[in-house]
Amino acid sequence: MAGSTYGKLFTVTTWGESHGKGIGVVVDGCPAGLELDESDIQRYLDRRKPGQSRFTTQRNEADAVQILSGVFEGKTTGTPISLVVFNTDQRSRDYGDIATCYRPGHADYTFDAKYGFRDYRGGGRSSGRETIGRVAAGAIAAKLLQTLGIDIHAYATAIGPVAIDRNAFDPAESLNNPLGMPDAAAATAAQEYLEECIKNQDSCGGIIECTINGMPAGIGDPVFDKLDANLAKAMLSIGSIKGFEIGDGFAAATSTGSVNNDAFILTDGSISKATNHAGGTLGGISDGSPVVFRVAVKPTPSISRPQQTVSQSGEAVDLSIKGRHDPIIVPRAIVVVECMAAITTLDLLLTNMSANVEHIKKIYER
Amino acid sequence: MAGSTYGKLFTVTTWGESHGKGIGVVVDGCPAGLELDESDIQRYLDRRKPGQSRFTTQRNEADAVQILSGVFEGKTTGTPISLVVFNTDQRSRDYGDIATCYRPGHADYTFDAKYGFRDYRGGGRSSGRETIGRVAAGAIAAKLLQTLGIDIHAYATAIGPVAIDRNAFDPAESLNNPLGMPDAAAATAAQEYLEECIKNQDSCGGIIECTINGMPAGIGDPVFDKLDANLAKAMLSIGSIKGFEIGDGFAAATSTGSVNNDAFILTDGSISKATNHAGGTLGGISDGSPVVFRVAVKPTPSISRPQQTVSQSGEAVDLSIKGRHDPIIVPRAIVVVECMAAITTLDLLLTNMSANVEHIKKIYER
Amino acid sequence: MAGSTYGKLFTVTTWGESHGKGIGVVVDGCPAGLELDESDIQRYLDRRKPGQSRFTTQRNEADAVQILSGVFEGKTTGTPISLVVFNTDQRSRDYGDIATCYRPGHADYTFDAKYGFRDYRGGGRSSGRETIGRVAAGAIAAKLLQTLGIDIHAYATAIGPVAIDRNAFDPAESLNNPLGMPDAAAATAAQEYLEECIKNQDSCGGIIECTINGMPAGIGDPVFDKLDANLAKAMLSIGSIKGFEIGDGFAAATSTGSVNNDAFILTDGSISKATNHAGGTLGGISDGSPVVFRVAVKPTPSISRPQQTVSQSGEAVDLSIKGRHDPIIVPRAIVVVECMAAITTLDLLLTNMSANVEHIKKIYER
Amino acid sequence: MAGSTYGKLFTVTTWGESHGKGIGVVVDGCPAGLELDESDIQRYLDRRKPGQSRFTTQRNEADAVQILSGVFEGKTTGTPISLVVFNTDQRSRDYGDIATCYRPGHADYTFDAKYGFRDYRGGGRSSGRETIGRVAAGAIAAKLLQTLGIDIHAYATAIGPVAIDRNAFDPAESLNNPLGMPDAAAATAAQEYLEECIKNQDSCGGIIECTINGMPAGIGDPVFDKLDANLAKAMLSIGSIKGFEIGDGFAAATSTGSVNNDAFILTDGSISKATNHAGGTLGGISDGSPVVFRVAVKPTPSISRPQQTVSQSGEAVDLSIKGRHDPIIVPRAIVVVECMAAITTLDLLLTNMSANVEHIKKIYER
Repeated sequence: MAGSTYGKLFTVTTWGESHGKGIGVVVDGCPAGLELDESDIQRYLDRRKPGQSRFTTQRNEADAVQILSGVFEGKTTGTPISLVVFNTDQRSRDYGDIATCYRPGHADYTFDAKYGFRDYRGGGRSSGRETIGRVAAGAIAAKLLQTLGIDIHAYATAIGPVAIDRNAFDPAESLNNPLGMPDAAAATAAQEYLEECIKNQDSCGGIIECTINGMPAGIGDPVFDKLDANLAKAMLSIGSIKGFEIGDGFAAATSTGSVNNDAFILTDGSISKATNHAGGTLGGISDGSPVVFRVAVKPTPSISRPQQTVSQSGEAVDLSIKGRHDPIIVPRAIVVVECMAAITTLDLLLTNMSANVEHIKKIYER
Repeated sequence: MAGSTYGKLFTVTTWGESHGKGIGVVVDGCPAGLELDESDIQRYLDRRKPGQSRFTTQRNEADAVQILSGVFEGKTTGTPISLVVFNTDQRSRDYGDIATCYRPGHADYTFDAKYGFRDYRGGGRSSGRETIGRVAAGAIAAKLLQTLGIDIHAYATAIGPVAIDRNAFDPAESLNNPLGMPDAAAATAAQEYLEECIKNQDSCGGIIECTINGMPAGIGDPVFDKLDANLAKAMLSIGSIKGFEIGDGFAAATSTGSVNNDAFILTDGSISKATNHAGGTLGGISDGSPVVFRVAVKPTPSISRPQQTVSQSGEAVDLSIKGRHDPIIVPRAIVVVECMAAITTLDLLLTNMSANVEHIKKIYER
Repeated sequence: MAGSTYGKLFTVTTWGESHGKGIGVVVDGCPAGLELDESDIQRYLDRRKPGQSRFTTQRNEADAVQILSGVFEGKTTGTPISLVVFNTDQRSRDYGDIATCYRPGHADYTFDAKYGFRDYRGGGRSSGRETIGRVAAGAIAAKLLQTLGIDIHAYATAIGPVAIDRNAFDPAESLNNPLGMPDAAAATAAQEYLEECIKNQDSCGGIIECTINGMPAGIGDPVFDKLDANLAKAMLSIGSIKGFEIGDGFAAATSTGSVNNDAFILTDGSISKATNHAGGTLGGISDGSPVVFRVAVKPTPSISRPQQTVSQSGEAVDLSIKGRHDPIIVPRAIVVVECMAAITTLDLLLTNMSANVEHIKKIYER
Repeated sequence: MAGSTYGKLFTVTTWGESHGKGIGVVVDGCPAGLELDESDIQRYLDRRKPGQSRFTTQRNEADAVQILSGVFEGKTTGTPISLVVFNTDQRSRDYGDIATCYRPGHADYTFDAKYGFRDYRGGGRSSGRETIGRVAAGAIAAKLLQTLGIDIHAYATAIGPVAIDRNAFDPAESLNNPLGMPDAAAATAAQEYLEECIKNQDSCGGIIECTINGMPAGIGDPVFDKLDANLAKAMLSIGSIKGFEIGDGFAAATSTGSVNNDAFILTDGSISKATNHAGGTLGGISDGSPVVFRVAVKPTPSISRPQQTVSQSGEAVDLSIKGRHDPIIVPRAIVVVECMAAITTLDLLLTNMSANVEHIKKIYER
């Protein structure tokens, strides 16, 4: 494996380049018997599709998914599910400077350093279009989790310097505005900020929060496969994500034990926690509270403003990036965060099935 | 694998409980021919040993490592290196409340939820003593990296609310004070803050920064095994770590593309970057700049102040934790961060050996 | 992973069902810079294509491969290579008994036992068409190995009871007859035997031998990833393969140490072996001699003669399998054996790159 | 991983050299709640212990196992189980020729080729003592399987040229004679043959058969992780094993479909097979019949008769191997075969838990 496969039991292998023939994913280890058709997946892909608002790239791709294998008579068969989105908007074009220069903030230089050359068309493998495969796979994971009562919801808590007001927090609102913010006033302010960015030929970043509700206690493996460790990897594996925190995260560093510890309490005879500073994990294993984490998204590196850089042949160059680029990727990244969280959660849920002898007896005792 | 193994080619499997017979690690995939003896490893273990200052637990363990396999005539043989630290301070004792109550901020409850019961002695497998295995393995990785000119250095940039002054930043100073802070004045202020915590029967957290110098460009795999993704997982897998950020991290979320992008420049004919907002990776692959990341450490959950909790049998309890506990784990966690960074870096360095045909010809062409 | 992925560094993930939309494979970890186009792969696929002689199924499939990703300007990029063969001969048809009965010798019953139901069309995932993905991936591995001077050649040493005469052994002849036997007289006798089988509405099996020439010493990992252990797994993972032996194999069980041991000798100052009873591995690591192994292929289970079986609903049934089936799969399995050997060999060759510090210095020393 | 780890969910990592400090294994992924103490493991180790008959090496090792972690109050905790057997018979000695010559049939030369040097003491890592770790881990797997009604039994069906009479087959007898043969007359004849071997300063091999009874249908994953493929790898990973076959194995190659296919039948309303030519798997998945496979064991390469070889410095040498060596390893390898079969079976049993949605609901539905 050279990094395009993720997950131990629910395993996702993505392939494809931005301007190649298509983008796809193979999902191996999806349990048999889940009802699934293309619309279940298309619904998620439509949330990351370009061209949905003036804050996302105007590239015109339908991103229509096809299921090529692993589903029979409307149900998953337990064998690999191959999904593909063929690229339709592959105009023959002049890649000009992009082919020969290293764009700041992009992976052009590092791919050359690693492989000796690169597919420069639209960023090749390092393009954001690679996440189509993750979203398609995540849609399947999310559907299976929902049948078990586990729901995942992500939203933007900040766009550039504009943060939501926690007192105005309204999850439903995040589906109403083009920025995915759970606070209508913040969303309005953020749109004004973005207009300014666009005018300045600049871009900005933001923060995405994700909540996993309905998570049973006991999910996640001690030591290296902690739930939060795997979520952190899943998140940082998304292009442009520069930070991850769970529960109080970096704020916990300035807190004290007496404040940061969540007291255990009894509610109707069952154990829960009075607070959730931990963000739903203790020792890397889910504790029954909602799992809450945040990621930092950097500003889109592609800006039309001229930038100083170097060409492959080793000459200083001034580069202006043309073409259709998102001034901010946060709105489209929200569903990618949800999907990577779904894949990670389901994978650990499946791993946990063999955690103890009682589980095994439930399946095999005759 | 149930989570106690980490790494693809340089693979680390840890075992052991806090109050069991010992703690150990098996390192598989260490290249043959590295000079290694126990002192190379002991040097690192001594940095995480308890009892080194009044801010660390007074538990009295020598933590003396033994090499049981994989080294012959002073060199690694390429076969598994088994390392063990036998527990010496295993007094027979009354675990009292710890055996029957769920300590807030600890993994007692989640281990029970997962496995049905737990080894409650000193936290069992979820104890910080588990990191002995990581440090022992990391010492080997660090030594090999050093022979290739790659050096890793971690230090505390904040203890509770006391942060270093970046203008006073002095890496050497971090080895002079018991808190590992690269700023003498901040270290003094932090010690005062800690005295206050101890007086209040409370604890605190902090922030650790880690720098990898000498990293060649091209390390890290696209998509899921990005260098930063694997570092994030490695860090969040350490108990008490609640956040990870690389380069400007969360601050990047409020920046703009024109500021956050690092311009490529030519220095003596070779390519480098004018700034390092990215923290040394682009597209998840090292770019030749120092790799710089930070982690958030939560306050030690074991505090002697009484806390509200619940017993295994489902009764509300007031719990006061006795015994020897660190009021802050940051100083001892610094070497754990370095070691997990070393393991992660070496593993991706080895994986990268087969990235292109030119590398392969260097080894196999006859 | 649920079993559709193979290999640690050169990783192959196959997908697809016999009568679904297509069959494909994703190859991750192919080193960058290998010249590759569709004809390199098609050449191998054509060797397993149906309809090439009267001893293979008359199903009419062109099995034309498309490269969907991972190749740019004629070279592999180091990122996943997605290959697909769309199924063209998907006539709407009545699957009749096959949909409701358990065919003897097939996986119908075991898929139902595992997954609760199955894609019964043409055997679904358990069909021999699944090997298209292996052959496509193996063609790439074989091409890379050839650039390093490593050549793999398989051929039939027995068809049913007709074995080759070792004194008449002629590798080139195996490419001249439709059965792939390296002995023209045996091939003629075998064809007569097969005519008899067909007349009897019956089928037969055979033995395939495979030789890896040019293998450097040192490939294979001690203990669990021995070269021969991985070859054995690769071979038994091919449908209808019931046995594997390396070197003298089962005959070694009746030999003695003094005969079976291969003496080391010096030839022009370099070490080789006087004999090759071992088949090219010692302790699971290649010893520089040709690697020689054999596999046993069972008779094709699909025969038109009526057979006793049971239906899904639990009734005894007499089943006659109609349709186009190979009376023997050996001729088409030969290239599958070669390809699985190529994948296995390349994977261990890449793993071996990090076996010792000298190799690492060749890549990284500055 | 460099080959010392085996298994996906029930994962076994062995370490140690023949004449180093000890031999050990870490078992990760053993479900919590299995009753386990050292005697459960010692019982299996005693079966492979040297010195049990005049046909096994007279090396004097108690091979006493210690559990260092993962068991608490008599039950497995779900965390890694570390097991160690310290070497006691480590006399300081002169390794003489063994240190500088390549023993025929051993891995001395290939280890040098791979790693540049080797631990030559008693064969180092390639010694048969490495299997102590496998047996210790396998004892745990076997115990868990037994609680589910799955029993594994191996025995010798041939010693050198002396094969058992299938009509006299008596499994219980295999525990009565020092060669593990399920036929008393054959065992007597084999002992005579072995006396002859010893007199000739020679050695011999044999065949071990293994039967897994009580296996539920549905175990094994299609394509690459077939039950038989994984068994083949497990078996060939044992030193000196040169062949593997399941069911009729190589004999199937000369059979016909009408004979080799096992008819499905109904017995008391449940499905079974009239015969078991397949050896208990169809399409790589268990079919509910006993799983039956055989392995070929080569003659012990260490013989006291002089042999021709080459020294490290490149000179032709006549080598006589002194010391205590088994004239045949079959009797001690029997338990190793059983244990590797147990590990492989349990691992696939655990993987199968997530094969379908019905299983998942049994664990998680609330």
